[in-house]
Amino acid sequence: MNRPLKVFTGKSNPALAREIAHHLELPLGRSSTEKFANDNLFVRFEESLREADVFIVQSLTPPVQDHLFELLMMIDAAKGASAHRVTAVIPYFSYARSDKKDEPRISVAARLVADLLQTAGADRVLTMTLHSPQVHGFFKVPMDHLSAEMVIANHFVTQIEDLEHAVVVAPDAGDIKRASALARRLGTPLAFIDKQRLSDTEVEARGLVGDVKSKIALVIDDEVSTAGSLVKAAETVLDAGAREVYAAVTHGVYVGPALERIAKSPIKTVAATDTCAPPDPLPEKLRVMKVAPLFAEAIDRIHRGESISALFN
Amino acid sequence: MNRPLKVFTGKSNPALAREIAHHLELPLGRSSTEKFANDNLFVRFEESLREADVFIVQSLTPPVQDHLFELLMMIDAAKGASAHRVTAVIPYFSYARSDKKDEPRISVAARLVADLLQTAGADRVLTMTLHSPQVHGFFKVPMDHLSAEMVIANHFVTQIEDLEHAVVVAPDAGDIKRASALARRLGTPLAFIDKQRLSDTEVEARGLVGDVKSKIALVIDDEVSTAGSLVKAAETVLDAGAREVYAAVTHGVYVGPALERIAKSPIKTVAATDTCAPPDPLPEKLRVMKVAPLFAEAIDRIHRGESISALFN
Amino acid sequence: MNRPLKVFTGKSNPALAREIAHHLELPLGRSSTEKFANDNLFVRFEESLREADVFIVQSLTPPVQDHLFELLMMIDAAKGASAHRVTAVIPYFSYARSDKKDEPRISVAARLVADLLQTAGADRVLTMTLHSPQVHGFFKVPMDHLSAEMVIANHFVTQIEDLEHAVVVAPDAGDIKRASALARRLGTPLAFIDKQRLSDTEVEARGLVGDVKSKIALVIDDEVSTAGSLVKAAETVLDAGAREVYAAVTHGVYVGPALERIAKSPIKTVAATDTCAPPDPLPEKLRVMKVAPLFAEAIDRIHRGESISALFN
Amino acid sequence: MNRPLKVFTGKSNPALAREIAHHLELPLGRSSTEKFANDNLFVRFEESLREADVFIVQSLTPPVQDHLFELLMMIDAAKGASAHRVTAVIPYFSYARSDKKDEPRISVAARLVADLLQTAGADRVLTMTLHSPQVHGFFKVPMDHLSAEMVIANHFVTQIEDLEHAVVVAPDAGDIKRASALARRLGTPLAFIDKQRLSDTEVEARGLVGDVKSKIALVIDDEVSTAGSLVKAAETVLDAGAREVYAAVTHGVYVGPALERIAKSPIKTVAATDTCAPPDPLPEKLRVMKVAPLFAEAIDRIHRGESISALFN
Amino acid sequence: MNRPLKVFTGKSNPALAREIAHHLELPLGRSSTEKFANDNLFVRFEESLREADVFIVQSLTPPVQDHLFELLMMIDAAKGASAHRVTAVIPYFSYARSDKKDEPRISVAARLVADLLQTAGADRVLTMTLHSPQVHGFFKVPMDHLSAEMVIANHFVTQIEDLEHAVVVAPDAGDIKRASALARRLGTPLAFIDKQRLSDTEVEARGLVGDVKSKIALVIDDEVSTAGSLVKAAETVLDAGAREVYAAVTHGVYVGPALERIAKSPIKTVAATDTCAPPDPLPEKLRVMKVAPLFAEAIDRIHRGESISALFN
Amino acid sequence: MNRPLKVFTGKSNPALAREIAHHLELPLGRSSTEKFANDNLFVRFEESLREADVFIVQSLTPPVQDHLFELLMMIDAAKGASAHRVTAVIPYFSYARSDKKDEPRISVAARLVADLLQTAGADRVLTMTLHSPQVHGFFKVPMDHLSAEMVIANHFVTQIEDLEHAVVVAPDAGDIKRASALARRLGTPLAFIDKQRLSDTEVEARGLVGDVKSKIALVIDDEVSTAGSLVKAAETVLDAGAREVYAAVTHGVYVGPALERIAKSPIKTVAATDTCAPPDPLPEKLRVMKVAPLFAEAIDRIHRGESISALFN
Repeated sequence: MNRPLKVFTGKSNPALAREIAHHLELPLGRSSTEKFANDNLFVRFEESLREADVFIVQSLTPPVQDHLFELLMMIDAAKGASAHRVTAVIPYFSYARSDKKDEPRISVAARLVADLLQTAGADRVLTMTLHSPQVHGFFKVPMDHLSAEMVIANHFVTQIEDLEHAVVVAPDAGDIKRASALARRLGTPLAFIDKQRLSDTEVEARGLVGDVKSKIALVIDDEVSTAGSLVKAAETVLDAGAREVYAAVTHGVYVGPALERIAKSPIKTVAATDTCAPPDPLPEKLRVMKVAPLFAEAIDRIHRGESISALFN
Repeated sequence: MNRPLKVFTGKSNPALAREIAHHLELPLGRSSTEKFANDNLFVRFEESLREADVFIVQSLTPPVQDHLFELLMMIDAAKGASAHRVTAVIPYFSYARSDKKDEPRISVAARLVADLLQTAGADRVLTMTLHSPQVHGFFKVPMDHLSAEMVIANHFVTQIEDLEHAVVVAPDAGDIKRASALARRLGTPLAFIDKQRLSDTEVEARGLVGDVKSKIALVIDDEVSTAGSLVKAAETVLDAGAREVYAAVTHGVYVGPALERIAKSPIKTVAATDTCAPPDPLPEKLRVMKVAPLFAEAIDRIHRGESISALFN
Repeated sequence: MNRPLKVFTGKSNPALAREIAHHLELPLGRSSTEKFANDNLFVRFEESLREADVFIVQSLTPPVQDHLFELLMMIDAAKGASAHRVTAVIPYFSYARSDKKDEPRISVAARLVADLLQTAGADRVLTMTLHSPQVHGFFKVPMDHLSAEMVIANHFVTQIEDLEHAVVVAPDAGDIKRASALARRLGTPLAFIDKQRLSDTEVEARGLVGDVKSKIALVIDDEVSTAGSLVKAAETVLDAGAREVYAAVTHGVYVGPALERIAKSPIKTVAATDTCAPPDPLPEKLRVMKVAPLFAEAIDRIHRGESISALFN
Repeated sequence: MNRPLKVFTGKSNPALAREIAHHLELPLGRSSTEKFANDNLFVRFEESLREADVFIVQSLTPPVQDHLFELLMMIDAAKGASAHRVTAVIPYFSYARSDKKDEPRISVAARLVADLLQTAGADRVLTMTLHSPQVHGFFKVPMDHLSAEMVIANHFVTQIEDLEHAVVVAPDAGDIKRASALARRLGTPLAFIDKQRLSDTEVEARGLVGDVKSKIALVIDDEVSTAGSLVKAAETVLDAGAREVYAAVTHGVYVGPALERIAKSPIKTVAATDTCAPPDPLPEKLRVMKVAPLFAEAIDRIHRGESISALFN
Repeated sequence: MNRPLKVFTGKSNPALAREIAHHLELPLGRSSTEKFANDNLFVRFEESLREADVFIVQSLTPPVQDHLFELLMMIDAAKGASAHRVTAVIPYFSYARSDKKDEPRISVAARLVADLLQTAGADRVLTMTLHSPQVHGFFKVPMDHLSAEMVIANHFVTQIEDLEHAVVVAPDAGDIKRASALARRLGTPLAFIDKQRLSDTEVEARGLVGDVKSKIALVIDDEVSTAGSLVKAAETVLDAGAREVYAAVTHGVYVGPALERIAKSPIKTVAATDTCAPPDPLPEKLRVMKVAPLFAEAIDRIHRGESISALFN
Repeated sequence: MNRPLKVFTGKSNPALAREIAHHLELPLGRSSTEKFANDNLFVRFEESLREADVFIVQSLTPPVQDHLFELLMMIDAAKGASAHRVTAVIPYFSYARSDKKDEPRISVAARLVADLLQTAGADRVLTMTLHSPQVHGFFKVPMDHLSAEMVIANHFVTQIEDLEHAVVVAPDAGDIKRASALARRLGTPLAFIDKQRLSDTEVEARGLVGDVKSKIALVIDDEVSTAGSLVKAAETVLDAGAREVYAAVTHGVYVGPALERIAKSPIKTVAATDTCAPPDPLPEKLRVMKVAPLFAEAIDRIHRGESISALFN
């Protein structure tokens, strides 16, 4: 597209946006967001967007609703300012977890947010590792859905010398598909923790499926928030004889007791991408995997009209 | 409508919702809102809404974005749960202040919020005293726009013995229409503070237009937030010889230094309706004007298909 | 709703529609569908639908596209004929299996079909056991999603004398949630067949997770089409020492070699509901679980505005 | 448009699509369509469509519903794969015959299909010889409506030596406009068969209007399906003294007894364009008029933004 | 529907609206329309419409654009005033004549007007004798399309003693279907005037098809505007030996030279319904056929949810 | 944008359109509009618009509804003719005055017209001096809102030698913002006429606010229609001692008694831009301020994707 490419950021993760722009060899677009005395938000683009190909980077991290509404206002303002195309770049789309109606009279919030983004004027969406792949179908506009799989694989390849003794562990049956793909990429076996309720009397996990004895357990998940389930998984595999435990997740939300739990846990390190702004200063055990290069490459391909799927083959 | 009438509340002003329900001789509908560890909201209706005529009461007070998104999710959940009709009751629609594009590349947020409410599924809207009446036109769905004028008039009639010596004062030229209507209702003259910039060198207010000497000044406005402009108006009219100053506004948002400023100011009392939940405990100088009877009457008429405009004549 | 309730049928499963109408003590509505010489469909309602609450029953069984388009035309014709509300009753929504974009440049067909139904004019949808629960979110109109769980549980309670020696078996990790719920209802343990690819060299299933030795295996699934995976599961559990195998699925599509495979297999019986019209005559090993009472009850509650979720508690 | 032009085909008439691509000096785009065991369709584009100007060729020939839904899925997949613009090229739009509500409670299916195509994401439509020109108005997106008139005229000019003794015959009053235009182009007189029901007792055709005696009758129509009306028309003009009869139609659907009827009839030859894939092998009396050059020219002009109407002047 | 039925009128034909209301035993609803100094229209309903079933009667007679926009504003105001349902009653929908794109770069205005009516908020449409029946498909909302056939038949049965010597004449091939239906109802033969251009040299009408000699010619059409074609038809049939000529049309627009032409013509009488307000005073040869009873009956059936098609059988 | 730029005109102000085209060094696009005998409009573009960037110039002057509907048809025809983008250039958007619901059961016509323009297919709107700035928010598509302020300022700078003795006068409190901005630009003080109703007994204006004694009064307004309020304002300032009075407005509609009133009034000159076609011949006291250069510049920037706001700084 022979239109100017512009990258702007909301307030949730400006460092990531800046890095993405840097990889694209662009200055980050100038915009500002204020809060009025009555808590209303106000956004303004401080450079012309006419006929530009605009990308707005915003993760739905806490305060989630402020970040979501800031994103909606930015999209609306960009369209009103005659941007040619507006792509919402949502590295961490937290509402993807609300993807089904497993209780009566609730909102399938991921669909609602998808509709709101489209009402505000988003022409397309770029995101990473949705909680379930069906959420893709909640969007009518084109979406590109990046995977952190390669980034995580590279992380372990670099970090773990002894990869032939490793095993990939999924902390929940729902994560098996992602875990399995990673295991294949790393050439390791796979194990997972069966948390299914098996009968009325056997309420809890049947424990671990697969062999972790004397192995280096690589626990992976799509997101860490309070770190409860991650730490539990680490303890389970150590109880089952694993030699040591490393963890890697796509989205490092780290809320509430997360950092303290990880510090006290037997996990060696927890790596997360920077789709969410990492804690600053970074606690000792935490590792950050950079996704700006991947997002920058995707944005460049979207802008130039080249295949994104080619990125993953 | 021979369908059940149900009133629910978001988290911004449950006391008002309860009073509205009480006036309608209904229990407040059962619903719950939670925040997950990752700051995502989750709402659930705890009773059937099938084919019901549902009213959801939510003011856009701080935290505004949480309250707005909670309202959107409740509307979405109610429609998904087969409510026959969902009316968003927004006693204080704070984003109405973002009603025009007076700078380039900003969002007309009042229109955006109107669109989001309709996307979520709102079938109609009930609100009070929008900042500008044009905001009505931002909604495609039917809207009823209540006025606090009678409530404020009654307040002054009750509070001020000496109404023949009173004068209604508008703190800004933009409020003259509302002030004028109130003055007619109370049978008092009108004055206002001219804050227009008159020329390049005369930057500030030309001061007061109209006669307030030895009079009881009744300052009115649509909203008080930091109370800066209200206190300034009070000082101006006292400087101009007014005997004493009382204030009344529709929406008492009271943020930041508001309560302290009012306490220290020469204003005798500041009355506001309870469209926003009043400070608790209520500071000495503050007065609360109840709007639940008016909202209940409006809801009842909407439900039964009777004229709302008749309410005001 | 004090409007007439009317139930019509497409050509995919008129027997089910007739039974549903019978349970509602209604005659089945009169309509006809023809195919013109050029293979175009033509539908016509042969009684007035003005202001009626119309339910159109159509499963997406082969020929799927004919049945889908017949349904779209019936919805369109009903809306054009001034029906008050049109509910698409789709007992078997086969396209629910196309729920994600696991390859580049494909259609998320379940979302597409959802959009087409809404474009044709469907005001709501009633279905049973969608392949994944996220498909609910593909619909903007209200949807009621029935479960065959109770029907299947009743079937086994009646059929299997010795339920304390039974075990529920899921033929795929993706089915664990449904299997687990059934196991709890029946008070049996749970097992499942792990078909995940574990590493590059271990391509195939790790076999069976859970203990089936000397037990009566109750294999369940959401749908049987060619019966390949069902028969494989049966062989696996018998190899693992199960005493005998019974199967139950929600949707009995039975295409291609299905009937022959089942006949030759060691499975004792395969029960399926009649969301899809059962083979006629019914092969010896097949059992039919009737869902007309459940659909009739749901339609009656939708019509009268009563809770559907109450049906399942 | 300086974006890549790509032409794909559905399964209804790949030979035509290939010829169109050939005329455009392009390879036909790579895509595949499968049918799953449960009769669900699955489509996939096997090359990138990002920012491309995509044309999908599909006639609505039998099996009509399969071809229609395949087209809808291809459009949806192309839009989801970020095609810049998707044009549905529907050489034979069979549902155009369902263009009015001449009975109560039926679907105006041509409008329904138009809406479905737009819901799936079609940005524009290119078609040939719609049954009635009003169908154009059923589409909100731009449509180009080609005419086979010149192709048919050229066919007769080439085939019939003795054109000064020919007469153009319309088999139905509804076709007079098209027949008249052709007659003017060929410089022949016009006749038509009056099939109007004239009174309760005179149920049938009043026969032939216009003079065919000793002439070469050129019967034309928009479509031949079972060939009943074409053969009847031929017999009528021969009875009225015509010397011989030739026929030409735009769309050669040839279903049911069509080929046998034509073989046995006194018609010398029946020419049809290849908007529908011709019978293979081609029966002796049939002639095929190629439309690929015309479609290729139209696609090229649409792609380059040049006038289509200029094509016909 | 147990909601109040209300009938309002625009300025094009208030007499008809009043008669319709009278037949429904209702007062005509109170509303007013003004024109401001700058030619802008202003409409206001002067009674509550909340939850009412509102019918607004407006024919698209000259000044057409004023009447159209008045109708759009009334629909919009009625929806904004919480009418339950708004039906646009358009006895004469003049733009139906712009139903196809027979030249490049024109508007299919009938489709445009249909879209505008729906944008303004029309829930349904009631009209009479559209120029072509395909225009029905331009509306997505339900439409009832009344026919004047019975009214015209009754007119002739009453007026013409000698009906066995009459012949129904269509002045154009496009009207044959309507003429034929009337002829069957009256038990007369049919003739029509062939205005088709037959070849390049035979530019004009081939004259009359059918036998009118010594007969009473009943010329019918959907609309008379300048009366040119009607008078020409009368002369043609008289030249062909008809004894006398009577005319009847659905819509009597009578513009420009119409009344003078009719006065001077050999036509005995011209009857038109009052879908358009008849000339006042009524010229000697004109007759008015009342349609208020038919519209009142249709409105009553729409309101009560009864079949309209039953009206015509 | 490397697509052809084309400017067309409706019938309301072709001279302005021609001048705009001239400034853009383009021929005015060829199109025609006719009225049929039945008062229906018919528009046709007489050159190809395929992939062009089309601007259609039409002011909503009397006959307003004809001009509005002509504009809607032109937009619709342009989109149907495959224009790449259609911008409605509405120099005078008269319906902007209907911007709120100050009475029950009326239409917010400015919002309705905005919706109709978007339904017809307008991709963007370019206008000048809307009655209230909130009307911007009635449009979902991008809008550029030009101001006549600089043009009016230049007019006075040129016309009035003695600008240091001038005062800008707003004839109504609602115009203060615009008047104040102009006063700052000219370096003059500000006065305005307070027409607010102050109490029940003081019905009329409190007269003039601000000092005009011995000054040259420059009365400004957004629009002059009957000139009543303008002449009254002139008399008021002269009564208050002003030396002489000049007027300038954006939109010179001049209807009814306007020209006569101005001729007889003490106003020296009335200047208006040519957003509305000026009276021809131009009465002695009238002056025309040209806006074609400003519109041409705006169109050029829109076409080339450059900032419009930069035009005003």
